[in-house]
Amino acid sequence: MTSLPDTPTSSTPRPVEGAHPFAGDPVFDLHRGGKLQTVSTSPLRDAADLALAYTPGVARVCEAIAADPALTRSYTWVPNTVAVVTDGTAVLGLGDIGPAAAMPVMEGKAVLFKEFGGVDAVPICLDTTDVDEIVETVARLAPSFGGINLEDISAPRCFEVEARLAERLDIPVFHDDQHGTAVVVLAALVNALRLTGRAIGETRVVIAGAGAAGVAVAKILLAAGVEDMVVTDRRGALRTGREAMTPVKEQVAAITADRTGRAGSLEEVLDGADVFVGLSGGAVPESAVATMAADAIVFALANPTPEVHPDVAHRYARVVATGRSDFPNQINNVLAFPGIFRGALDVHASAISETMKVAAAAALADLVGDDLAEDLVIPSPFDPRVGPAVAAAVARAARDGGVARR
Amino acid sequence: MTSLPDTPTSSTPRPVEGAHPFAGDPVFDLHRGGKLQTVSTSPLRDAADLALAYTPGVARVCEAIAADPALTRSYTWVPNTVAVVTDGTAVLGLGDIGPAAAMPVMEGKAVLFKEFGGVDAVPICLDTTDVDEIVETVARLAPSFGGINLEDISAPRCFEVEARLAERLDIPVFHDDQHGTAVVVLAALVNALRLTGRAIGETRVVIAGAGAAGVAVAKILLAAGVEDMVVTDRRGALRTGREAMTPVKEQVAAITADRTGRAGSLEEVLDGADVFVGLSGGAVPESAVATMAADAIVFALANPTPEVHPDVAHRYARVVATGRSDFPNQINNVLAFPGIFRGALDVHASAISETMKVAAAAALADLVGDDLAEDLVIPSPFDPRVGPAVAAAVARAARDGGVARR
Repeated sequence: MTSLPDTPTSSTPRPVEGAHPFAGDPVFDLHRGGKLQTVSTSPLRDAADLALAYTPGVARVCEAIAADPALTRSYTWVPNTVAVVTDGTAVLGLGDIGPAAAMPVMEGKAVLFKEFGGVDAVPICLDTTDVDEIVETVARLAPSFGGINLEDISAPRCFEVEARLAERLDIPVFHDDQHGTAVVVLAALVNALRLTGRAIGETRVVIAGAGAAGVAVAKILLAAGVEDMVVTDRRGALRTGREAMTPVKEQVAAITADRTGRAGSLEEVLDGADVFVGLSGGAVPESAVATMAADAIVFALANPTPEVHPDVAHRYARVVATGRSDFPNQINNVLAFPGIFRGALDVHASAISETMKVAAAAALADLVGDDLAEDLVIPSPFDPRVGPAVAAAVARAARDGGVARR
Repeated sequence: MTSLPDTPTSSTPRPVEGAHPFAGDPVFDLHRGGKLQTVSTSPLRDAADLALAYTPGVARVCEAIAADPALTRSYTWVPNTVAVVTDGTAVLGLGDIGPAAAMPVMEGKAVLFKEFGGVDAVPICLDTTDVDEIVETVARLAPSFGGINLEDISAPRCFEVEARLAERLDIPVFHDDQHGTAVVVLAALVNALRLTGRAIGETRVVIAGAGAAGVAVAKILLAAGVEDMVVTDRRGALRTGREAMTPVKEQVAAITADRTGRAGSLEEVLDGADVFVGLSGGAVPESAVATMAADAIVFALANPTPEVHPDVAHRYARVVATGRSDFPNQINNVLAFPGIFRGALDVHASAISETMKVAAAAALADLVGDDLAEDLVIPSPFDPRVGPAVAAAVARAARDGGVARR
């Protein structure tokens, strides 16, 4: 991989709308006119520049690509781009607010892709929530992008959308709500287990929440070696044949609580558990946290209100993480997705495999190194080593797994 | 319209692919790694910035837009964006080279949108050539963009795609191969008629080519007052009932040669004509140009090889224009589309109407002013007055025509 520094050459100032009802509010002031823009990589000063970048010069580049499609990777922005695609049905904790209202999150995601991964990302908010239509639409867009980052699509539709697109396309497809969260949780858990002297195969884990994140965290932890796991929803532990199950929940139940025979309410299965991962938003009473094992690990990841307040959790748990930036150990997807796509794009990966995700988590965990402590099990998003380390690990795993094409 | 200067804040250098078989060729060197990138409009330096631009701050912006969708225009990049959409079927003069090979042109277009209109444009190359699928796909993308620029979609499919999308969407839809060309041809023709002392209603026009550009030029010239017009294809003048007609050609024939009774080959109808507009790529013999009226006007717009060489045309014609930058009077769409979309976006237009296009042409023509001469009937794309003048005229026409929403 070679690198060339690019000098943005923005020219015409962008007009910004007048209506600004929240003026003076720093969040809205920052969002005024949007957070993203496009910029040329080279100047257009005169007719000579125009003749190179546009007609007649550009025709020769088109002809070269028509003759050898692999040259797309050398002479277009495609290999460095990702579409950030949503249908607006599960935006942050706000739920189904629709494609227009989802745009600020997708723009933010695109900004993070660039800042932390050097990836040019384009927000795409779709005016459909139909699985077939989402799949068809994204598949038709695919020649324009080097990868597809699905975002804030509600469960269980998100599982089918991702699976069908991954099957159909030869570029990476990645639902960040599932796998970004899963990678960072695994990284933090690996370090928390180191700190508390646990072997992963002998650790009892409870995951609250069986949505996109809960299911993906369960799967990556199983792949990493957890053997005793329970996933709960509002009705308690998932068990096959239980009432109010979905096909995905049945599948998860079969590889978690069914194996160990655990059942019951969240409070009941927390009794004696080593690890709690909250991905539900539902409150967990202090009395339940109090019944966990000694040196317990509590990841209360609901935003903005963790399932249990970190100060309360600390009364019983040795390691506490949240999704918030104002407490230690923030489980933040931005630690994962920019580097994961950077690595996948660098080697022209055809997919993002489970081993690439596990490699990303291992790289993240290792960055903490000798600084490992109760309040430092995961690096800061602003640690400049994060993106490159994750990208390198992901690229290596892609090569080792035969997913890389260069 | 207010303006805020934006400072691009690119950070991570973009990796550029290694394969570079045309190294040393200035066109390919310029294209290496692509011509476009995304950039944040504000810096992300620390957790405080992240909390404003992304979670938790961004959730409040999403909630505000969910409550009042009009705030999309204040707090996202959508109102300043255009999707540059192609299916790769009619790329420049190269024909159906497919979506991947079309990308350099679409990136170039996006660069021109930004440089000459301050519009953030995103290239979208579709993996389908089916009209229904193109329409459905673009309609589903619509919440992400402030306008749709269709590009290099072959005739006659382009007519149906544009008409159906314009009918369905409440944002501007504009097929540049048709209307961008038409606007600039009209502007140049208005000035050429001034120079040669002709009234538009008494001018005899021949248009060679009945594709996207030929049909659109015919329509805008009729709207501007031309009464005696013939449009030809490879078989000569379009007449209703002639062999090898299409529905669109029938429609054009009925409002052109059918009215005046002219028929025959291109050479035959050129005899005595005042104006020739070449949009076909087919060569026109010198002997035919020689039969045109005194003070003839010849626009030989095929690229890179004009229908008649400008030096040859000048032997008989008083005003000669081409599509090339290395001759005077370049008919270049970049004179039109950036300003047209700038104006349409500024007033939140729901469409780009015929009167907006005619207003754009008039503004372009007027910019030449007292400099009007045989070798200057149209301004240079690098005249800094062009974009603002076209935008202002288009915005005014949109307001006058009830198409503006602010």
